[in-house]
Amino acid sequence: MSVKVCIINIGNELLLGRTININLSWLGVHLAELGLPISRSVTIQDNPEDIKATLQAEWQLHDVVIVTGGLGPTDDDITKAVIADFFHKQLEFREEVWKNVHDIFARRNIKIPEINRSQAMVPEGFTALSNSKGTAPGLYYMEHGKSFFALPGVPLEMKTIFADHISAILSKDYPCEPLEIVNIHTWNISESALAEKLIDLKIPDGVQLAWLPQTGRVDLRIYGKDWKLIDKLEEEIHQKAQPWIWGMGDDKPQTSVQGMMIGKGLTLSVAESCTGGLVQELLTGVPNSSEYFVGGIVTYSNEMKINQLDVKPDTLDKFGAVSIETAAEMAVGIKAVTKSDLGISITGIAGPGGGTIDKPIGLVCFGIYDGTRVSTKMIVFNGDRKSIRWKAAEYVLLLLLDYLGSRG
Amino acid sequence: MSVKVCIINIGNELLLGRTININLSWLGVHLAELGLPISRSVTIQDNPEDIKATLQAEWQLHDVVIVTGGLGPTDDDITKAVIADFFHKQLEFREEVWKNVHDIFARRNIKIPEINRSQAMVPEGFTALSNSKGTAPGLYYMEHGKSFFALPGVPLEMKTIFADHISAILSKDYPCEPLEIVNIHTWNISESALAEKLIDLKIPDGVQLAWLPQTGRVDLRIYGKDWKLIDKLEEEIHQKAQPWIWGMGDDKPQTSVQGMMIGKGLTLSVAESCTGGLVQELLTGVPNSSEYFVGGIVTYSNEMKINQLDVKPDTLDKFGAVSIETAAEMAVGIKAVTKSDLGISITGIAGPGGGTIDKPIGLVCFGIYDGTRVSTKMIVFNGDRKSIRWKAAEYVLLLLLDYLGSRG
Repeated sequence: MSVKVCIINIGNELLLGRTININLSWLGVHLAELGLPISRSVTIQDNPEDIKATLQAEWQLHDVVIVTGGLGPTDDDITKAVIADFFHKQLEFREEVWKNVHDIFARRNIKIPEINRSQAMVPEGFTALSNSKGTAPGLYYMEHGKSFFALPGVPLEMKTIFADHISAILSKDYPCEPLEIVNIHTWNISESALAEKLIDLKIPDGVQLAWLPQTGRVDLRIYGKDWKLIDKLEEEIHQKAQPWIWGMGDDKPQTSVQGMMIGKGLTLSVAESCTGGLVQELLTGVPNSSEYFVGGIVTYSNEMKINQLDVKPDTLDKFGAVSIETAAEMAVGIKAVTKSDLGISITGIAGPGGGTIDKPIGLVCFGIYDGTRVSTKMIVFNGDRKSIRWKAAEYVLLLLLDYLGSRG
Repeated sequence: MSVKVCIINIGNELLLGRTININLSWLGVHLAELGLPISRSVTIQDNPEDIKATLQAEWQLHDVVIVTGGLGPTDDDITKAVIADFFHKQLEFREEVWKNVHDIFARRNIKIPEINRSQAMVPEGFTALSNSKGTAPGLYYMEHGKSFFALPGVPLEMKTIFADHISAILSKDYPCEPLEIVNIHTWNISESALAEKLIDLKIPDGVQLAWLPQTGRVDLRIYGKDWKLIDKLEEEIHQKAQPWIWGMGDDKPQTSVQGMMIGKGLTLSVAESCTGGLVQELLTGVPNSSEYFVGGIVTYSNEMKINQLDVKPDTLDKFGAVSIETAAEMAVGIKAVTKSDLGISITGIAGPGGGTIDKPIGLVCFGIYDGTRVSTKMIVFNGDRKSIRWKAAEYVLLLLLDYLGSRG
């Protein structure tokens, strides 16, 4: 029988938008790894009535309930009071929690604001789970074989308490086959065209296939508890969709690029215009990227393209800043300037202004130069400024992967 | 009496993590603007039992129910079939929807995959809301004064259908005072220290104050329907917390920088090391940034710092690549190379490797050069690689804002 897990996220800010619920996705990944995928998640306002009604409904239906949010120093203890009340407990002052709060402020050399005293109040019979990244402890309580947890909403603190305590408690109390998850990353094909390629795929019972359209490409996810069935399905998908698969698992275009560049002992530099630094930001977001990435230049003006990358004024005059000719010279220029083995370039029109009939918004030109030959490509992307920049940045990395793959 | 709005997000991938629910936050913002803030949101797996049980529970309790997800070409129609069943309707084929799907593929010059035919099936009595960005139409049904909507889960399509149809339907059927929202952005002060500054703030009935800790800084949000009370509270907060407030409303560090730079007619360039392009990516994410931002250089190696930015080898030897001395020379160098009015620089240790006792992970040095004087600053940030880079990038922009503000 499967363990039913419910996440309750408390926070007006999540319902008013602007704050994105990254706690849910983080918990989703980590609970699935424990073999305890989330059955249901509810996001509610932080008022006592809604919290109480939701606890009542979900505590009945689930084996594990994890509440996040409403435990910070400025949250007026609404959540903690309602939780105590729901389980018919009094709040009591815990010396060891207060000491932890104290130590955190002492380390920062700050006088402790009195407001933090409320952080040390815990419902009787509950375990306080220590929080090494903040002042609010987690709460844990078990009743009739069911487990209840409450965690602060600040992501770093939520994650730390989960990793330090909850993960071990759940693996001990609910030992499960972990959920096997296989991710397959495709590009250069639409969701429905890919669906047609896979139309006669047989998906066995107990295995699920999820379609995850990303910005500009599609991911497939296979999951279930029987790795043999999963392996078989994965192999079938590989056979049918090989030409469009660029990566697996946790691969991102930038991690795959890093793996191949370091594997081949090559160095890379980047010249960007419309992506404004995003390509380099993606590359350098990966630890150890300095092993192959030497640096790059964002040339947002024609002058910088001429002065820094040695793009010919003639080329800019004749073909424009957004052209495969300019992209080619940018790739050659950045390789020369940085003395890297490969130089890549992007120049395009991200919008919202700057489009023309000949060169619409979304037009982006790419170059790759290896010292012998410049490869170029021109694509028109759909979407707004943000998604055009994002698609273009990922695209140049996937082009580079393609180049690296085809050169053995 | 207030209108109760519930969002039901269908999608295993949201509960398995990895896919973040950005639809919820987008709907949260846009419904609040209509005066219809979300009361409750539920995320469920895409199986018929959960969808049906959730529709039953939430349709009773709410006036407006919006379902997202489960309507794409690869979703096997589970959602649509359950919705039709729940409202006791048959699915019927709609010619005009099929024509739209057809046109989309024709425009892309692609033969239409047969799998898309299911997109044209709509429950009888329902209105199909046209989707200009994809093949799945939205669905709309009204019963006993309550409104039901179903939308595809792909964010761009969900947003388009909401903006094109639902916004107008809801404003007509549920005319409301829009929710007034005031955002106040602070930095250089912790949440609990700020709470102490605001401890004797009186928050009137009908107005709410939310504390929104961001990575490395704190935002405050005041909201309610009475703008007079909100204005008064805002003024009080300004009086008590002025030194720590850097922006209001939708301000981001990069939009405020752009406003001030263009206002003063100055141009900017950036030299980055540990942030690897993130600062420039933030700046150029804002439309029209080319009006003041000329470009920049990511120098990930010492050679690039020396060759591109004219940092002295002696300075690197004596003080190291992460030092205020190097940051100062980088700022001077980038200004000279790009001929901009201001040059800013960042060099630091983002981790996970590279830290020492003298120079721990998180140490970041900043420089601002205006042609006369170099200002420098050194900070140690907490967190992992990603949050150190993020905090550092925002910090240099806030330093620049500070600099621009203090120079009149």
